[in-house]
Amino acid sequence: MQYEDYQALVEGALEKAMKREDVPDKLRQAMAYSLLAGGKRLRPVLLLAAYALKKDDLETALPYAIALEMIHSYSLIHDDLPAMDDDDLRRGKPTNHKVFGEGIAILAGDGLISMAFETMLTAALTAPSPKAALTAMEAIARRSGVTGMVAGQAVDLAMEGQMPTKESVTYIHTHKTADLMTSAVEAGLYLAEADKKEIEAGIMFGTHLGLAFQMVDDLLDVEGDENLLGKKIGMDTAREKMTWVALCGAERTKAVAGSHVDKAVDALGIFKERGKFLETLANSTLYRVK
Amino acid sequence: MQYEDYQALVEGALEKAMKREDVPDKLRQAMAYSLLAGGKRLRPVLLLAAYALKKDDLETALPYAIALEMIHSYSLIHDDLPAMDDDDLRRGKPTNHKVFGEGIAILAGDGLISMAFETMLTAALTAPSPKAALTAMEAIARRSGVTGMVAGQAVDLAMEGQMPTKESVTYIHTHKTADLMTSAVEAGLYLAEADKKEIEAGIMFGTHLGLAFQMVDDLLDVEGDENLLGKKIGMDTAREKMTWVALCGAERTKAVAGSHVDKAVDALGIFKERGKFLETLANSTLYRVK
Repeated sequence: MQYEDYQALVEGALEKAMKREDVPDKLRQAMAYSLLAGGKRLRPVLLLAAYALKKDDLETALPYAIALEMIHSYSLIHDDLPAMDDDDLRRGKPTNHKVFGEGIAILAGDGLISMAFETMLTAALTAPSPKAALTAMEAIARRSGVTGMVAGQAVDLAMEGQMPTKESVTYIHTHKTADLMTSAVEAGLYLAEADKKEIEAGIMFGTHLGLAFQMVDDLLDVEGDENLLGKKIGMDTAREKMTWVALCGAERTKAVAGSHVDKAVDALGIFKERGKFLETLANSTLYRVK
Repeated sequence: MQYEDYQALVEGALEKAMKREDVPDKLRQAMAYSLLAGGKRLRPVLLLAAYALKKDDLETALPYAIALEMIHSYSLIHDDLPAMDDDDLRRGKPTNHKVFGEGIAILAGDGLISMAFETMLTAALTAPSPKAALTAMEAIARRSGVTGMVAGQAVDLAMEGQMPTKESVTYIHTHKTADLMTSAVEAGLYLAEADKKEIEAGIMFGTHLGLAFQMVDDLLDVEGDENLLGKKIGMDTAREKMTWVALCGAERTKAVAGSHVDKAVDALGIFKERGKFLETLANSTLYRVK
């Protein structure tokens, strides 16, 4: 399968998940506005591709994959709010609160995180292995929560305007970005009932990929193309954000991102031929910057 | 067991859950500020008491009970935000965003909902019955989500300033308030592996109790004591909120609340002697108003 095949599978499942008449109109519209705004669907693709390292019946993993995208989408809606990053544009469109107002935007985020767990738990009720489903969901809850993504966001917010240190930037990158990607790989492998060594390799892969990804994201904020990105560049500098680029410059950031990609690829060795897709995906992270 | 015994069990478990050093300081402080601000702990007590209708090892149900309080607490933090109800006081203390700022308050809410699912899923990994745990968590996710509590909040927000109708007030009360209480009873019974008829009775009990509870809450906003309530009264009227009192006046609201309590008590018949505690609890709902 190619990236586009995974992406299409995710896109179809997300659209289906949002076609429900039991959710109040305005809430459903606000959730769908952000959730169905396109994007690469990287996290759900990672979950499906990690599952495919061991098994082929992707339908089993699909509810967990779209749940991850719901969690990612809620975090973007809340992150764009005036009290947080105060962004007006996301993927070339006005941000959620700009269209629906702050109150509904907050609730759309709350709704998406609730729907993520509801979607996974509904699937888990008829899962081939309830234990595998529980382990996968626990990893997602933990890595998106108060020691994971939310922790990264909180430190990111608290540190604005302070001098970046390697320790603080690493903490923010690891938790704000890498944790959710790692949970995608981890959950996919748990669902496929991978063994302990494979899970460890998956966590290693996800963490290094996530760190490389966030470094590239930081670089794009400095030297990206606003039309391609669908958002303003230079915002991290304007907000005095903790970025790797602010810490040690663009050249060094590219080099460090490259070494993370190498480590991610190395971790895939245990999966032999089945690791090829994720290897290509990891290498492509760097193509986003010249 | 008395109400205070259940409450003490919940209070102890909540304090223990918040003693963690792996959560960033400011985030943990903001979460603890709201979660450990006291209160009756009605929802977790309901879950434990529902479990006790069938079984006595309350420790098994405790993680799910405190998770419900985390969900309740997140909803209060987000509900108090300027973009929502814009409240300055909650339980006699400044609201979360007044103390920690809006950004951290949003994240404290996001953190609490994440922690709720993490807490339940961690417990579920070693649950005596994974199937019972999954069913309980699914009920909580569904009733706190986009067809439950979040739906109720969204409609409540959207309808501000409009003429109340019986249909809209009932929708808001059922979802904003009753659903989370119903999920407490439902989850407690699922965890205790109750049968289908008992679950149906529990849902009936929780729904009527929740409706009565919200009506009493609406009444207290009209005729309550600010010092006892720890918040300003008259706010529903000022905000032109959809309340039962606005729909048909205080006297009629009291009568309808009373009939909901009666229906809640009737539903307990199936549990015989073990239903006594919840019967007393339901009747006490009305003592809050004269």
